[in-house]
Amino acid sequence: MNEYPSILLGEAVNQFASLPGMGRKTALRHVLALLRRSDGDVERFASSITNLKKNVHYCRRCHNICDSDLCPICSAIHRDQHTICVVENIRDVMSIENTGQYNGLYHVLGGVISPMDNIGPKDIEIESLVARIPDEQIQEVILALPTTMEGDTTNFFIYRKLSALTNTCKVSQIARGVAVGNDIEYTDEITLGKSILNRTEYKG
Amino acid sequence: MNEYPSILLGEAVNQFASLPGMGRKTALRHVLALLRRSDGDVERFASSITNLKKNVHYCRRCHNICDSDLCPICSAIHRDQHTICVVENIRDVMSIENTGQYNGLYHVLGGVISPMDNIGPKDIEIESLVARIPDEQIQEVILALPTTMEGDTTNFFIYRKLSALTNTCKVSQIARGVAVGNDIEYTDEITLGKSILNRTEYKG
Repeated sequence: MNEYPSILLGEAVNQFASLPGMGRKTALRHVLALLRRSDGDVERFASSITNLKKNVHYCRRCHNICDSDLCPICSAIHRDQHTICVVENIRDVMSIENTGQYNGLYHVLGGVISPMDNIGPKDIEIESLVARIPDEQIQEVILALPTTMEGDTTNFFIYRKLSALTNTCKVSQIARGVAVGNDIEYTDEITLGKSILNRTEYKG
Repeated sequence: MNEYPSILLGEAVNQFASLPGMGRKTALRHVLALLRRSDGDVERFASSITNLKKNVHYCRRCHNICDSDLCPICSAIHRDQHTICVVENIRDVMSIENTGQYNGLYHVLGGVISPMDNIGPKDIEIESLVARIPDEQIQEVILALPTTMEGDTTNFFIYRKLSALTNTCKVSQIARGVAVGNDIEYTDEITLGKSILNRTEYKG
């Protein structure tokens, strides 16, 4: 006998198990949960994903995902049009938006430079970022890439590109330090060291 | 701004987040992973689940999932046709099949009796199980339901039904005891107590 008593079931499980971080047992659980729903519900589940794939747009300015040519952030006139926050992917846009602490624009790179994965500067949206600086008279670029070797490499690459281009645009990066709620004694040495070097004035 | 920059994205995330045990962050991760694939891949993903829903069959004898009228287990002539293993769902069938220790038939109840969830004996496949005993001249019914209050209730209900029907069909239940690889000292008292009461002869 096969692993699954039904070929169609096996096929659906294979598809779910191909999603990142999903094992075959979890995949089977999800497929069986869907199978218990009505035909209409299953149809809606399937079409939500095909609809998205068919009709998705990426913002021509910041490459964020959206339903039209320009994303809701780029088209919001009340936002600061002279600051760009550079992020790796659209999930980072949502995370930063959720903080409610940022009111400028974004630029989604779609990845970070990673020679190990064969991702070079040409494979991500760095050129379009550089082009935006003079075009949109950007005054500050905030680098909000992951604090990994790849993120640091990409940060440095962008910094070099921008320095060569302009000396009116400030380049900053998000603060790295002890996370809110974390104990000092359990913070790793590199983070703790950076938090001392980059200390900020105490304003009471 | 909405939680998601695209309504279509939000819709797909909602659908994924409706699966059991899946949070909105994981759902978003899966949707974005699918979005990075080709149109054909996304189409195959969606159709695998609609195909399954449209064309799935349940075995008319044991209610296992299958591609035709009778499941591969029920139609396997080399299997013991006089023993039925009663399980809650088709995942349990697969788990027991994977052990390679059982060569009889199954009966999938599709649930266990649970007054809290409004599931009574009529809502699960108990009547069809009882009907199989004389019809197929069953000699042993093995109860392999979960070791929970609901599982125990269902076990007892089936036992009573079968006792009233016949005295030639043996009713047994799978052994409950210390799991292989587990330390005695960390085994809970109820399990350890049962493992002593239900000790088996040591055969060296």
